[in-house]
Amino acid sequence: MSAVHAARAAITAFRQVPPFAQGVVRDLRVRWALEEAGLSYEQELLGIGENRSAAYRARQPFGQVPAYDDGDVGMFESGAIVLHVAAGCDALLPAEPRARARATTWVFAALNTVEPPIATLAELDLFHRDEPWAPLRRPGAVAAVQGRLDDLAAWLGGREWLEERFTAGDLMMTTVLRILRDTDLVTRMPVLDAYVRRGEARPAFGRALAAQMAVFAGQPPL
Amino acid sequence: MSAVHAARAAITAFRQVPPFAQGVVRDLRVRWALEEAGLSYEQELLGIGENRSAAYRARQPFGQVPAYDDGDVGMFESGAIVLHVAAGCDALLPAEPRARARATTWVFAALNTVEPPIATLAELDLFHRDEPWAPLRRPGAVAAVQGRLDDLAAWLGGREWLEERFTAGDLMMTTVLRILRDTDLVTRMPVLDAYVRRGEARPAFGRALAAQMAVFAGQPPL
Repeated sequence: MSAVHAARAAITAFRQVPPFAQGVVRDLRVRWALEEAGLSYEQELLGIGENRSAAYRARQPFGQVPAYDDGDVGMFESGAIVLHVAAGCDALLPAEPRARARATTWVFAALNTVEPPIATLAELDLFHRDEPWAPLRRPGAVAAVQGRLDDLAAWLGGREWLEERFTAGDLMMTTVLRILRDTDLVTRMPVLDAYVRRGEARPAFGRALAAQMAVFAGQPPL
Repeated sequence: MSAVHAARAAITAFRQVPPFAQGVVRDLRVRWALEEAGLSYEQELLGIGENRSAAYRARQPFGQVPAYDDGDVGMFESGAIVLHVAAGCDALLPAEPRARARATTWVFAALNTVEPPIATLAELDLFHRDEPWAPLRRPGAVAAVQGRLDDLAAWLGGREWLEERFTAGDLMMTTVLRILRDTDLVTRMPVLDAYVRRGEARPAFGRALAAQMAVFAGQPPL
């Protein structure tokens, strides 16, 4: 892929979200990747309902954030944007083919194997807690998450990162595991807890999180 | 990425699966990509429980299929493998940066936005049908799928493919929508039904599906 045109990179983000979503909205992933790559970016903030407008859906057909534009390409899906940014940044995606393939593997593992059961559990807790089926469903939903976490922890073992060094795969996996921050599922597993903390300790993560939170702090709460 | 070493490409697949999974196991995606790219491949078949062995988990930490090896790289996750194969195949991933970014976007949209609610519904119908919470949960699970399908159909409109031409994004989206084959959710939407049929009509899809089904036909049923 071609290098990102730093001066023109722009992302969409929500102007405000409920407290449970602050710090885990998916534009965080792209902000983090851009920070790792040392690229500045502009943000275009969406008010309530703007993400469902016809104009926005021409850019993002599912009404989600983030969408991304750097003058050359217009994209959506945090995974695709992170890979695009990473393609021009050795810190995120090694140039060596084998290492690059492994990093890409982990981006997809985070999004398509680990995140789905986590998202199911988070949606149950956040949006369906009071529905009659929720307490009946929850044990199975927790078990599904636990299975993935056990597999991931077994892989990590004593490793610092998923492969020999930090890559976009770790960036994505860290943000996926953070969705569980209101449970003890990660914190009670020392291997995973330390792994998430290592990711969060990266200065680029800190800048990305601060940038997302600053938007919400500057707006009236929902 | 470097070109795939065709002569040495090998994937893992299950030796046998229940009828409901035949024709939709995820190695189909990689078989399809390899067929579109005109690459031959070998298959390594896993018996019941082999996917949970320590030896296999060293290759695929979550015990899933497919894993992939082409002599240069060892990978897993159907999305990552398809992108890797596609990188050397203009029929799947255009070389032009803007078109390439769009195709990559749709691979992720298929796997991280459209598939999760579809997988939730499929799991409910296949594995949890007799649990007391299932009939209470199902209407909401269907509504979540319908929302994504409505958005996707609105995007497609009169388009033949998600962008100007068939790409890896269409390959992935077609296989995701096929998970709904035991429901009428796709077939009752003419835009999506025609879209899936266009994908399935590609000769490379036909060869991939036949290859997956031939494995199961050659083994005693479960």
